[in-house]
Amino acid sequence: MRARTLRPRLITLTSDLGSAYAAQMKAVLAHRLRPGQVVDLAHDLRPHAVGEAAFLLRSMAGGFPPGTVHVAVIDPGVGGRRAPIAIECADGSTLVGPDNGVLLPLAEQLGRPRAYRIDPQRLDARGRIGTTFDGRDLFAPTAARLARGTPAHRLGVRIQPHHYAVPAAVRTRSGGRGEVLHVDRFGNLITNFPTEWLPRGARRVEVRLGRGARRTLPVASSYEALGRGGVGVLGSSFGLLEVSESEGSAARRLRAVVGTPAEVTWATDRERT
Amino acid sequence: MRARTLRPRLITLTSDLGSAYAAQMKAVLAHRLRPGQVVDLAHDLRPHAVGEAAFLLRSMAGGFPPGTVHVAVIDPGVGGRRAPIAIECADGSTLVGPDNGVLLPLAEQLGRPRAYRIDPQRLDARGRIGTTFDGRDLFAPTAARLARGTPAHRLGVRIQPHHYAVPAAVRTRSGGRGEVLHVDRFGNLITNFPTEWLPRGARRVEVRLGRGARRTLPVASSYEALGRGGVGVLGSSFGLLEVSESEGSAARRLRAVVGTPAEVTWATDRERT
Amino acid sequence: MRARTLRPRLITLTSDLGSAYAAQMKAVLAHRLRPGQVVDLAHDLRPHAVGEAAFLLRSMAGGFPPGTVHVAVIDPGVGGRRAPIAIECADGSTLVGPDNGVLLPLAEQLGRPRAYRIDPQRLDARGRIGTTFDGRDLFAPTAARLARGTPAHRLGVRIQPHHYAVPAAVRTRSGGRGEVLHVDRFGNLITNFPTEWLPRGARRVEVRLGRGARRTLPVASSYEALGRGGVGVLGSSFGLLEVSESEGSAARRLRAVVGTPAEVTWATDRERT
Repeated sequence: MRARTLRPRLITLTSDLGSAYAAQMKAVLAHRLRPGQVVDLAHDLRPHAVGEAAFLLRSMAGGFPPGTVHVAVIDPGVGGRRAPIAIECADGSTLVGPDNGVLLPLAEQLGRPRAYRIDPQRLDARGRIGTTFDGRDLFAPTAARLARGTPAHRLGVRIQPHHYAVPAAVRTRSGGRGEVLHVDRFGNLITNFPTEWLPRGARRVEVRLGRGARRTLPVASSYEALGRGGVGVLGSSFGLLEVSESEGSAARRLRAVVGTPAEVTWATDRERT
Repeated sequence: MRARTLRPRLITLTSDLGSAYAAQMKAVLAHRLRPGQVVDLAHDLRPHAVGEAAFLLRSMAGGFPPGTVHVAVIDPGVGGRRAPIAIECADGSTLVGPDNGVLLPLAEQLGRPRAYRIDPQRLDARGRIGTTFDGRDLFAPTAARLARGTPAHRLGVRIQPHHYAVPAAVRTRSGGRGEVLHVDRFGNLITNFPTEWLPRGARRVEVRLGRGARRTLPVASSYEALGRGGVGVLGSSFGLLEVSESEGSAARRLRAVVGTPAEVTWATDRERT
Repeated sequence: MRARTLRPRLITLTSDLGSAYAAQMKAVLAHRLRPGQVVDLAHDLRPHAVGEAAFLLRSMAGGFPPGTVHVAVIDPGVGGRRAPIAIECADGSTLVGPDNGVLLPLAEQLGRPRAYRIDPQRLDARGRIGTTFDGRDLFAPTAARLARGTPAHRLGVRIQPHHYAVPAAVRTRSGGRGEVLHVDRFGNLITNFPTEWLPRGARRVEVRLGRGARRTLPVASSYEALGRGGVGVLGSSFGLLEVSESEGSAARRLRAVVGTPAEVTWATDRERT
């Protein structure tokens, strides 16, 4: 335990703000933290895409050590009625951001979330300029306080955060119905079908994306196995099935985006003959 | 005070160089600094946009602790006649970069700037390759020296830096004439009209951008209040008025870019009826 | 020596993964390293461009202190037959990544490379999810072990890595034949002609790119000297000749990309008259 307390709590930053606004948050944090304590996860998330950000935040931040403070600023409702919140989790991690759902999937994964509405009066925040950047004016000062040991319940009253869950796929007798959760930099389509749904030994999956045609795609364990330009289904690093084009963009090829409905059918070899 | 001196001086990096050239600067800095002492602000600024970078540098770096070393490499004149300079400011911060104006607004804000022309002979710089990357070959070694305690006046002779100021808006009887200083990642148009110019309680502003039509836009305190796709005027986090489209890009919608002239007229309620 | 051992070994990260996947690697590393020990070089390299990445990795990572651990994840063959490797170099630096050539130019520059095939059994890696992200599942845990002092030979058997060298230009009687190695953020075309090949005092070079026309271009020591929109040849910061357009993109203007063949002829003043 003593070793834990000597190690400073890391603060991670995730946003759709771009680098220049994120830098203003780092300036606030630099005043009271040690060099290196702040870790950028991403500042180039799709603007205002709260659901996709919630999914990515869980996958990025979920692997950090217990006790980390995670700040997420994907906040189209800034300045409006949505509350600023801090969520304490079972492992001692604390999540900071708007109460629009972006923190919830991560909070649920880390366990036993207790949310508090941040009270600006309890922060030693400098005078706020404008009402459009709570990331700098509220969330960064909150994160600095938390990282230095203040418990979240000291910063505001307990509230019930708005519910949000990453959309779950529905299992059907011979496959499932779900959607595309994320398109990565390579154009891979990350769906919400858990990789373990894939029947053991399955070599092919029938896939339909949006209103596109049904396609029977090979199941592969590497992009290389698809051959250059080949399209197929892989178990992604998210633990979810992905549809990929080897050395190409499945998103462009299959005209799919985040939210595109997806249907899969496990094509047994018998059905294929 | 003693605690302050034990804390290492941070070095911030701002550029239009992209990540690969910035990494070469980090390599130079890694030799003599502690892990975490270098903080990236932005490396994706618009290429060669010195004026916009000067504005952004002030807004990003101005919030860092006293004593920080800020390096800015937006340097279309590299290898030419413009001097490499270091500017010491009242709070103990030092700014490093080309003498093309990019450092000046920040220097003026930090106060009492004293500029020195960096003399490469006084640096323990490695042999320089080419003449096109002073960021790596001059500014990074300078920053490392400064962060380790060498005062700027030891690195070169005092000079008068080239003047540059962020363009100021002109106040008129019923509004103002200014321009767009920055377009952010969301397409918000950050103008140079101070938010405090807005008459108290004003609900509408007449805005003209470039040769576009005059538009009467609502004043809002949040993007949400504009309604999806609504365009309006907000007090931005820069302390300046911004023209925004809720969940859209005002830059695209109103065809404005950095430098587009802007006129505002405070539409009193009387005038509107 | 003692001072060296007290300083923690830095870990650099280079990839084409984008920020969200890179963040997952940082999560793994955060468990056992000190704040600030991990330095991002670039995560926006061109997807799957192994050759260009090998060139850039050498130029970025080559300048870091001895003993640094460099991780490179440009890995189109992930999950396939290519081995995961760690390469120890003469200066105590260790390189970690796929055995597809991306590490080789850096390894050769750092000297006396000894490569080992990483054995997942010898890592305290968490259960692997999927087979598509060795960066997180193998390379990050390997880098953490190396940074904490485990020598590479403890992590697997010695192997001969696949050969890869940055394409070399061929010198001809009056110039050379080479290619474009890299297009930077400004559209500058970095060729593989060493700057020292340029005859002393040469004022002009005849350049042909791909199937384009031969052009006689001025040699300049700054972009400014070319005049706005002017195209010319400079000694780049890589120690290689670059073809540049002042305040414009030579890549767009001359329609060249990475891999475009290039021919240069040193245009003596006599030849020109």
